[in-house]
Amino acid sequence: MKIWQKNINVDSFVESFTVGNDRAMDMHLAAADVLGSLAHTRMLNAIGLMTEEDLTAVQGELKHIYSEIEQGNFVIEDSVEDVHSQVEMLLTKRIGDAGKKIHSGRSRNDQVLVDLKLYFRSEIQHLVGQVTSLFEQLITLSNQHKDILIPGYTHLQIAMPSSFGLWFGAYAESLVDDLEMMKAAWRVCNKNPLGSAAGYGSSFPLDRTMTTRLLGFDDLNYNVVYAQMGRGKTERILAQAMSSIAATLAKFAMDVTLFINQNFGFISFPANLTTGSSIMPHKKNPDVFELIRSRCNKIQALPNEIALMTTNLPGGYHRDLQLLKENLFPAFQSLSDCLEITKFMLEHITVKENVLDDPKYDYLFSVEVVNNEVLKGIPFREAYKNIGLAIEDGTFKPAKEVNHTHEGSIGNLCNDQIQRMFNEVKAGFGFEKVETALTTLVK
Amino acid sequence: MKIWQKNINVDSFVESFTVGNDRAMDMHLAAADVLGSLAHTRMLNAIGLMTEEDLTAVQGELKHIYSEIEQGNFVIEDSVEDVHSQVEMLLTKRIGDAGKKIHSGRSRNDQVLVDLKLYFRSEIQHLVGQVTSLFEQLITLSNQHKDILIPGYTHLQIAMPSSFGLWFGAYAESLVDDLEMMKAAWRVCNKNPLGSAAGYGSSFPLDRTMTTRLLGFDDLNYNVVYAQMGRGKTERILAQAMSSIAATLAKFAMDVTLFINQNFGFISFPANLTTGSSIMPHKKNPDVFELIRSRCNKIQALPNEIALMTTNLPGGYHRDLQLLKENLFPAFQSLSDCLEITKFMLEHITVKENVLDDPKYDYLFSVEVVNNEVLKGIPFREAYKNIGLAIEDGTFKPAKEVNHTHEGSIGNLCNDQIQRMFNEVKAGFGFEKVETALTTLVK
Amino acid sequence: MKIWQKNINVDSFVESFTVGNDRAMDMHLAAADVLGSLAHTRMLNAIGLMTEEDLTAVQGELKHIYSEIEQGNFVIEDSVEDVHSQVEMLLTKRIGDAGKKIHSGRSRNDQVLVDLKLYFRSEIQHLVGQVTSLFEQLITLSNQHKDILIPGYTHLQIAMPSSFGLWFGAYAESLVDDLEMMKAAWRVCNKNPLGSAAGYGSSFPLDRTMTTRLLGFDDLNYNVVYAQMGRGKTERILAQAMSSIAATLAKFAMDVTLFINQNFGFISFPANLTTGSSIMPHKKNPDVFELIRSRCNKIQALPNEIALMTTNLPGGYHRDLQLLKENLFPAFQSLSDCLEITKFMLEHITVKENVLDDPKYDYLFSVEVVNNEVLKGIPFREAYKNIGLAIEDGTFKPAKEVNHTHEGSIGNLCNDQIQRMFNEVKAGFGFEKVETALTTLVK
Amino acid sequence: MKIWQKNINVDSFVESFTVGNDRAMDMHLAAADVLGSLAHTRMLNAIGLMTEEDLTAVQGELKHIYSEIEQGNFVIEDSVEDVHSQVEMLLTKRIGDAGKKIHSGRSRNDQVLVDLKLYFRSEIQHLVGQVTSLFEQLITLSNQHKDILIPGYTHLQIAMPSSFGLWFGAYAESLVDDLEMMKAAWRVCNKNPLGSAAGYGSSFPLDRTMTTRLLGFDDLNYNVVYAQMGRGKTERILAQAMSSIAATLAKFAMDVTLFINQNFGFISFPANLTTGSSIMPHKKNPDVFELIRSRCNKIQALPNEIALMTTNLPGGYHRDLQLLKENLFPAFQSLSDCLEITKFMLEHITVKENVLDDPKYDYLFSVEVVNNEVLKGIPFREAYKNIGLAIEDGTFKPAKEVNHTHEGSIGNLCNDQIQRMFNEVKAGFGFEKVETALTTLVK
Repeated sequence: MKIWQKNINVDSFVESFTVGNDRAMDMHLAAADVLGSLAHTRMLNAIGLMTEEDLTAVQGELKHIYSEIEQGNFVIEDSVEDVHSQVEMLLTKRIGDAGKKIHSGRSRNDQVLVDLKLYFRSEIQHLVGQVTSLFEQLITLSNQHKDILIPGYTHLQIAMPSSFGLWFGAYAESLVDDLEMMKAAWRVCNKNPLGSAAGYGSSFPLDRTMTTRLLGFDDLNYNVVYAQMGRGKTERILAQAMSSIAATLAKFAMDVTLFINQNFGFISFPANLTTGSSIMPHKKNPDVFELIRSRCNKIQALPNEIALMTTNLPGGYHRDLQLLKENLFPAFQSLSDCLEITKFMLEHITVKENVLDDPKYDYLFSVEVVNNEVLKGIPFREAYKNIGLAIEDGTFKPAKEVNHTHEGSIGNLCNDQIQRMFNEVKAGFGFEKVETALTTLVK
Repeated sequence: MKIWQKNINVDSFVESFTVGNDRAMDMHLAAADVLGSLAHTRMLNAIGLMTEEDLTAVQGELKHIYSEIEQGNFVIEDSVEDVHSQVEMLLTKRIGDAGKKIHSGRSRNDQVLVDLKLYFRSEIQHLVGQVTSLFEQLITLSNQHKDILIPGYTHLQIAMPSSFGLWFGAYAESLVDDLEMMKAAWRVCNKNPLGSAAGYGSSFPLDRTMTTRLLGFDDLNYNVVYAQMGRGKTERILAQAMSSIAATLAKFAMDVTLFINQNFGFISFPANLTTGSSIMPHKKNPDVFELIRSRCNKIQALPNEIALMTTNLPGGYHRDLQLLKENLFPAFQSLSDCLEITKFMLEHITVKENVLDDPKYDYLFSVEVVNNEVLKGIPFREAYKNIGLAIEDGTFKPAKEVNHTHEGSIGNLCNDQIQRMFNEVKAGFGFEKVETALTTLVK
Repeated sequence: MKIWQKNINVDSFVESFTVGNDRAMDMHLAAADVLGSLAHTRMLNAIGLMTEEDLTAVQGELKHIYSEIEQGNFVIEDSVEDVHSQVEMLLTKRIGDAGKKIHSGRSRNDQVLVDLKLYFRSEIQHLVGQVTSLFEQLITLSNQHKDILIPGYTHLQIAMPSSFGLWFGAYAESLVDDLEMMKAAWRVCNKNPLGSAAGYGSSFPLDRTMTTRLLGFDDLNYNVVYAQMGRGKTERILAQAMSSIAATLAKFAMDVTLFINQNFGFISFPANLTTGSSIMPHKKNPDVFELIRSRCNKIQALPNEIALMTTNLPGGYHRDLQLLKENLFPAFQSLSDCLEITKFMLEHITVKENVLDDPKYDYLFSVEVVNNEVLKGIPFREAYKNIGLAIEDGTFKPAKEVNHTHEGSIGNLCNDQIQRMFNEVKAGFGFEKVETALTTLVK
Repeated sequence: MKIWQKNINVDSFVESFTVGNDRAMDMHLAAADVLGSLAHTRMLNAIGLMTEEDLTAVQGELKHIYSEIEQGNFVIEDSVEDVHSQVEMLLTKRIGDAGKKIHSGRSRNDQVLVDLKLYFRSEIQHLVGQVTSLFEQLITLSNQHKDILIPGYTHLQIAMPSSFGLWFGAYAESLVDDLEMMKAAWRVCNKNPLGSAAGYGSSFPLDRTMTTRLLGFDDLNYNVVYAQMGRGKTERILAQAMSSIAATLAKFAMDVTLFINQNFGFISFPANLTTGSSIMPHKKNPDVFELIRSRCNKIQALPNEIALMTTNLPGGYHRDLQLLKENLFPAFQSLSDCLEITKFMLEHITVKENVLDDPKYDYLFSVEVVNNEVLKGIPFREAYKNIGLAIEDGTFKPAKEVNHTHEGSIGNLCNDQIQRMFNEVKAGFGFEKVETALTTLVK
């Protein structure tokens, strides 16, 4: 069934090529599609384009379909092109002609646009929840191991003393900045495109402010041409925000594969959380972190893929945009998995206590010694030169004590401040308003 | 002169390879470098690491160098490695040993980090100013031409009536969402990394909260390991924000090259703003918009370049990060030029008034006619089918009238709401606080 | 079942995360995996590591499994990790202990490496076949419509006369250069990595030259460290070659969407090969070409994705490489579909005959007129200026005749030369040698 | 001066925006531009469009300009738009009206196309020369240190014995495959676009086969529309080939930064080839290799940048293409520098001899022991299990002997075969034919 079908059969090769994986991708949009129709039909009724009787029938059945989706009892049939057609077909089959009227004042284009925004909002909220859990786990580990020193590297050369408190806390703070990007993506997603029709508006006296309120959006995509232009752009911005979280996880995973390597040996995981080798019986490989790294690097490639698929397309809808679903939708699950398993692995990490006892780490303390000279009044450049010469002639003997007190240093991690910043960014999303609106809509 | 030079000469081939274009790039950081030192030395004095006398000499001369930079009288000498060494060398040459003391409690790493953040803040503020001018020009044109209809395309097929009001307004609204991304970048930039030293903190009792206040930062990069990890990440986020503006401009330029093409013929520019051909005397080519498109697509490639250059680097500073300057710094100028010239061109655009008189645009009005049937009570799917058949058998006669009234449609552009949204996002940057702090610092 | 399993259970969360989509992806490698084992075991026998009796049993059953794969009767069971384990398990279940011996002198790593190369060779050969069909269709259309003129554009401005002969022929010739890239990828793929074990070779006296010959490879990946380093690199090079074909198709699709647009109107397709609109009954959208463009742009993003997932990984195998399968393997099918449907659509294309009758195309002929003046002895710059002035004052009257005779011009397309170049590049692959070797191996 | 200038002044803002950095970039094309004109004018004479007298004057002066370029005495004046105008202006100034006639039968478009191809050929030849030097240095080191063992890693976990012979040799062999890509790029570059005019051919009876021969091209870009379509495509293919070499260098640099790290400590460089730290006197940082890595990753980003700037541009020239010069041209120098300095550094590398004496590397030999059991007749899976249990209970005692004999293994590096493959690929370029043609042309 194709709802635009007149009396010409589209060649079946063309049909299978154009539908592609769309049915599988569209399953992600099912709940959002029903939510959009619940709001749209209430608005149609309010402006006199749907009778009370039809509205009652439509709302009842849409809520029924919504609960079927929630319970996993919804499928897109093979004979049906996409999720939107499936919902409309079910509705018409179950309540008759009233079902056919829900598409008044709406195009497939703005229907997809609003579905995407509702779906993205839901995924963002889910990801932010997982980022919060991981953040808390990192802060916990940072506080717990704040006194255990490890070498700090620059140029991958042994440089200065660091600590597990700093290491875990750094990645926690990284998530704060990642949330800033995600909040920008949220704000771009949280505007209502419904009512823009095919990207040029409608001659119906639609009340777009009403659907904005009903769906819990913060604002409208006012200009109808821009509402359509948001397709592809919204996806790219969201992918950029996801890539920021992904970059944090990937970098952490790189550190883990290095620190678990036997030449470093700073951390370990239980044997049942590593994997073996088909040929080397002693291996306990950090496959989980290699796959976190790889999945996250793949997510980092996503914004560029979207850019390549949308760049230089002139204004107005193009079918090209359909394919943006294919790598973006699975990326939500993939990033979510990575956040979940990173937290899970961190619940089982073991850190090594006396790493710095090894004499190869003595030079870590050279800066401390330079600074102590400076505190005694010797100009920095001179102190620096003296210690350098002592190192060269082998007379350098460090105290192996670290007494850092300033904000964010080994002795003063400021994890409470980092927690404060995290809370402030997160509070700015305003998830509660959205939840209240949607709960009311499906009630 | 290399400040880390002991008594071994670095091979000159290695030296020229490692310095690369750094001197040229570093000129952009000169003002920021002095600002950072002004704040750092006041803090050193406050914690007892610099005498009042030295502070007075240092502050006086730094402000002097700052004014030399402002006046274009500052150069990095060929014998000097980078901007930081140049400033320190000038200072020491002019005020003696006091100049050598400004580097206490600071590493080259956190010095560069704070310079970059100050520089990026300045460039962001500049870009936001230009975005504002372009936004206003677009809103003006949208209001001015709101009644002039043009075809709206979907799939690049003639679809429904649009207008110059919608077209100009759409790109204005696009800039609103772009600013959301830029604000996220601003918030990531507007945190103080100074005091993180080489990424592992310092044994000096630094007062990082004081330098944060003096430099007008909103907050700190607390964790010193994270402060260093922000290098590369900050650049990537900023490039992503720039790429969002760039994508808007590139898409607009694509539309322009199409609309100015003789098969469309919707707009034109004065002959002196187009360019000729060496072989075809009649050509008036839209080179400016082709170059806007190309420059902006190049900027769109920047976040990916940064990702490729930083992905899978383990924690801690790597010299790789130096090269991030090379395409990012010129991109500020390039994006700025594109914003400027787009506005300039729009000041001279001519729009064609009666495009839709051409009968090939009759079908634009089919949806209007369908909707009118629906308003008379005919179900949408039936009305749709009827008009479709009328088009097929050639009996379709459209009224060529557009009466759209809902929010964001041809008859109700809501440019005031779009302006409100723009103002709200822009107000969130808080440029004034930064300006006040910096003015105080150099006074 | 995990073949490296000792007596520790890997946590099931970790297991599902690490296996990911690998089973689905591995189905593509099944035939290659059996081919590799057929060659490896014959070599084991030749060097005395497998008895004649075991070899007979193993070869018989492997050929049986191969025919099951060919007939679509092979599955990877849910309890089995990957295709390699599935084949080994089937073998051992069916022929007993001899099945366990096939992994001697081989690691999972070089087994995967050789499977990938065999699979890639097969996909390349398939793609080259389809490129050939499309090439021939384009040449046919070019010859068929060589006398039908259309406007040629530069800067998307009407420039000079072109023809359908040139247009179709240009894309045919583009495929010649694309094949050069594919041949480079083929040559990189056509070297044998088997025998490199886990990337550091084996203490068994393997005869790698023998497996090279049996599998029809041109040469060896000699250095065992490099053989492993080829993972990721081979994929990237292959993706680059695919992206070159994809870029040609995407550009052609862009031209089609423009030429089918009503403002150009140079070409059309039957109604059953276009798609409709849910709201605009007159639309006949070129969705097929929009999706070719989009799929091909997605393929163009693939080399960069692979680069991002492999850059900065130090030497030796990393689990990251497993994920490269996920977008690469489906890209073969996607590119194959695009080649197939492009050819299919071209079999049904209709070209418009008298496009240039429209007076807006008069200026196309200005260069012809300039050149005619030059042939009469007037210096080019003067002739150019004269015609320019004639155009400006409206006295320009073109002859609308095109008489181009040089190589590759409207009147002398040189399609036979383009065909010759195509044949030369294609002959360099040497598919026959590979086919002969594999046919012998499974016989 | 603009050669297409009629009597309208182009606004100076527009002019500076459109010219951009073109003059600086164009300096790279100067020699190629003269070569193209030498061939073009001889052809014009042959077809009767240039007198013998004019030809003699033009050839003499073009050769004179060529020698000025060779000697570094050529500049593009500020008042001149690009290199092509500069050459034409010099010519006309020096030999009068004959100079004006060289542009007959040529457009700026095909002039640039042929300049680019000639320039790219020259850069490719230069790079291949440097790749050869580096290849030889790697082979030399591989042979020299073939008996020195190091640990081999998989998953960055200690895995199996490797050697410096394998390590250096692997990167040598990597360059063989890189050359395959470069040869494909060479073949795409080595076809003559001259005579395609503005992309639609010319009404002059040009002899394109003659210029093909004079310029030493292997073949023609026949179809004139394709000749123009090669712009952007040639650049992308060439950038892909460069990115392959760059990926090899970047990976090698990553290995170096790891192996020089104190936790590994396998290699070292003289102090004067490393750099210091402004705060840590003991540091000897591998900045050269970090910058090789970074520059090469930047080059890896180039093909994607080109794709983003050219994707979805319809057929025909667009000004966008001008900007492709900006990152591509400097990349030749950058890659050349990286090749040069890698070789330079390798001339000074010191390798550590007894790395494997450290007991943490004992497990490297587990596979050897498993294999020895297998050679005694024990099935692989049983031997694997036994050694695994011995490792678990601490009774594992390896022999620390490596006896690998198969092709490409520690004991049989096959560097002669790798050299043979290198020679074969290199021979396929056919540089001599090009050199002979160009020498004749400027003689």
